[in-house]
Amino acid sequence: MPKIESVDLFYVSMPVVEDISDGSQDALLVRVSAGGKVGWGEAEAAPLPSIASWIAPMSHGFCHPIKTSVMGQELNSPEDIKRINDTVKRRSLDILQTDHTLSGIDEALWDLLGHMRQEPVWKILGYKKSWPKTPYASQLFGLTPQETLNKAKAVVADGYRASKFGWSNFGMTTVKDDADHLMAAREGLGKDGILLVDAGCVFGDDVERAAKRLPALKEAKATWYEEPLDRDALTEFKALSKKTPKVKLAGGEGAYTYLMAKQMMDIAGLSFIQIDAGRIGGITPAKQAADYAKKKGVTFVNHTFTSHLQLSASLQPYAGMKDHEICEYPVELKTVAKAITRNQIGRDKNGQVRAPDAPGLGMEVDADALKPFLVDVSIKVGGKSLYETPVLRK
Amino acid sequence: MPKIESVDLFYVSMPVVEDISDGSQDALLVRVSAGGKVGWGEAEAAPLPSIASWIAPMSHGFCHPIKTSVMGQELNSPEDIKRINDTVKRRSLDILQTDHTLSGIDEALWDLLGHMRQEPVWKILGYKKSWPKTPYASQLFGLTPQETLNKAKAVVADGYRASKFGWSNFGMTTVKDDADHLMAAREGLGKDGILLVDAGCVFGDDVERAAKRLPALKEAKATWYEEPLDRDALTEFKALSKKTPKVKLAGGEGAYTYLMAKQMMDIAGLSFIQIDAGRIGGITPAKQAADYAKKKGVTFVNHTFTSHLQLSASLQPYAGMKDHEICEYPVELKTVAKAITRNQIGRDKNGQVRAPDAPGLGMEVDADALKPFLVDVSIKVGGKSLYETPVLRK
Repeated sequence: MPKIESVDLFYVSMPVVEDISDGSQDALLVRVSAGGKVGWGEAEAAPLPSIASWIAPMSHGFCHPIKTSVMGQELNSPEDIKRINDTVKRRSLDILQTDHTLSGIDEALWDLLGHMRQEPVWKILGYKKSWPKTPYASQLFGLTPQETLNKAKAVVADGYRASKFGWSNFGMTTVKDDADHLMAAREGLGKDGILLVDAGCVFGDDVERAAKRLPALKEAKATWYEEPLDRDALTEFKALSKKTPKVKLAGGEGAYTYLMAKQMMDIAGLSFIQIDAGRIGGITPAKQAADYAKKKGVTFVNHTFTSHLQLSASLQPYAGMKDHEICEYPVELKTVAKAITRNQIGRDKNGQVRAPDAPGLGMEVDADALKPFLVDVSIKVGGKSLYETPVLRK
Repeated sequence: MPKIESVDLFYVSMPVVEDISDGSQDALLVRVSAGGKVGWGEAEAAPLPSIASWIAPMSHGFCHPIKTSVMGQELNSPEDIKRINDTVKRRSLDILQTDHTLSGIDEALWDLLGHMRQEPVWKILGYKKSWPKTPYASQLFGLTPQETLNKAKAVVADGYRASKFGWSNFGMTTVKDDADHLMAAREGLGKDGILLVDAGCVFGDDVERAAKRLPALKEAKATWYEEPLDRDALTEFKALSKKTPKVKLAGGEGAYTYLMAKQMMDIAGLSFIQIDAGRIGGITPAKQAADYAKKKGVTFVNHTFTSHLQLSASLQPYAGMKDHEICEYPVELKTVAKAITRNQIGRDKNGQVRAPDAPGLGMEVDADALKPFLVDVSIKVGGKSLYETPVLRK
């Protein structure tokens, strides 16, 4: 029975990280080996606190370093991954950072299992086919409506049917300003374009302020209104879902456990649940969320703002769900995120994308291209070295 | 206007940490100074990941190191603390560890403000009086029913009217075993003792397994049944609250934002909300939770399993709420947790405790006593030192 022989965490980053809402400026990569095979995953998480949670000295029986629940474990089946996932969650329950770190590990374990079986992860998850998805170009609102208009036109020119605009100044100035941006985006996308709007939690728990944007969203024919409220504000989300004019709500990227995603589907009045496999604890809980979404009649969408390794990981859980066809597809990746994989998940002749029909996650991590971005980290506790950046290899 | 001049984080620990559910084996202390005054707080969090979140290099605009939202800020009023709290939460939204770390900082800021004004924190929070609370001795179930019986008798002999038993093997073997422990605890406490039971999330989202313990809990006259289910399982908690025989549910220690605590009160069918100021993001959100509990008719209880500095911080938010009188009072503190404060919050002649009538949190941190427990930490990123354990001083 193969056992997990090594787990290496790598922090890669742009030389200069800018103070903008672009999540592709750094990454935490996880490399796992067992039985002569290697798997890679990525945590959509702050690298340094995640590395710290991996090696943090035990605080008590429910606050173990994650490392001790993974190293040496048997790995031969999805059940083994589930067992490792459950063990980490229980033994590191009181380290808040745990589930973010676990996400990268779980992804790497699935990639590894796929390589052992020479099968795509989506097939091991029980799907017969990887259905095409309609990618939306995910980008930030412009600083002016004119800039938003130009950005919308640019993605149309680039062949996208759908685009999401988000963050930036949305919700921070006036209702009129937001409306101007929304109408500019609609104009740029044309009347048949799919317009998605991401408010980035800007209204906290203030349902009324969030609701003031509904008329403009309706007028601009937004397909969804994403995260107008704080990620924990479930009853407030529900209240907003009942306001008129009706605009469908989306959320879930902040869910860092399956049960959080489930509560959002049960309580918050969501029409779309957006799951980041790099945050929710990996592909294992993301698949649970996809199954539950299907059951509840909620549309599952991946959340991905980083590399194509992460994109593949986030596509796997719903690859076989034909009717859940919207897909977040990052278009403004920084060079470090591009460097992570040698191959990319490209758009086909219909402009659609799908989870690769190749072993594991189907992505080839490019250790050589990544080397210039590798960040050297050293953590010593009580005079003992607990973490030194490992050698980056395939 | 005074500005925050220094913030120091200290990791203190027992020389050997045991694999038991005792949260007092290490601690993360926070020392803040401004305008010539000093304040202390404690995060009930894994120290190393929390330190990492304090200094983690920026990943993007919503993933800043916490440090940059605190240092140099003006501090003169509760509104300043709220502003700092809000800034940290927004700028470090995507570091999962953030709210745990923030808890210690917020507590220290309140202590500091109290010292500036020479007033207890509870007075600045708007309370006229610090009401006596009935402490329950918080301890682990014994390994055998006989041991549980002995533990219950011991706390009665020590003058406690109430005791909580938790974790250990509860829920891990049979319904009969759990019933035996519960009846042993009841026998040991006598018929008028207040028996509280903490299941430590052992049943996950399995309402039926959790419900199987209800008859024994009812028979043993348990005042509450704490965290039978996963912290995120709100709808499942609600379902359990409707099962017969009826046993009141308690939960909330895992809430790391005010809104999470609010959702639990709104949705989960809780009769008791247990808030740890050292986890929820400090005294600021803990007070919001206490206000909301009052409004909703839910009883507020502090959650504290560590030092008396943390005990004071967790008492402040409901110090003036006369009818919310149960108080968690840790009785098995390890020497490092005892060493944190020179003074302790003792029981009065009626066996009750209260938040101190003294400036700030009313606790004197004992730098000299702590020195032997100080853990030396060094974190270097990209060849640059980001954290070295500071000099421990008053």
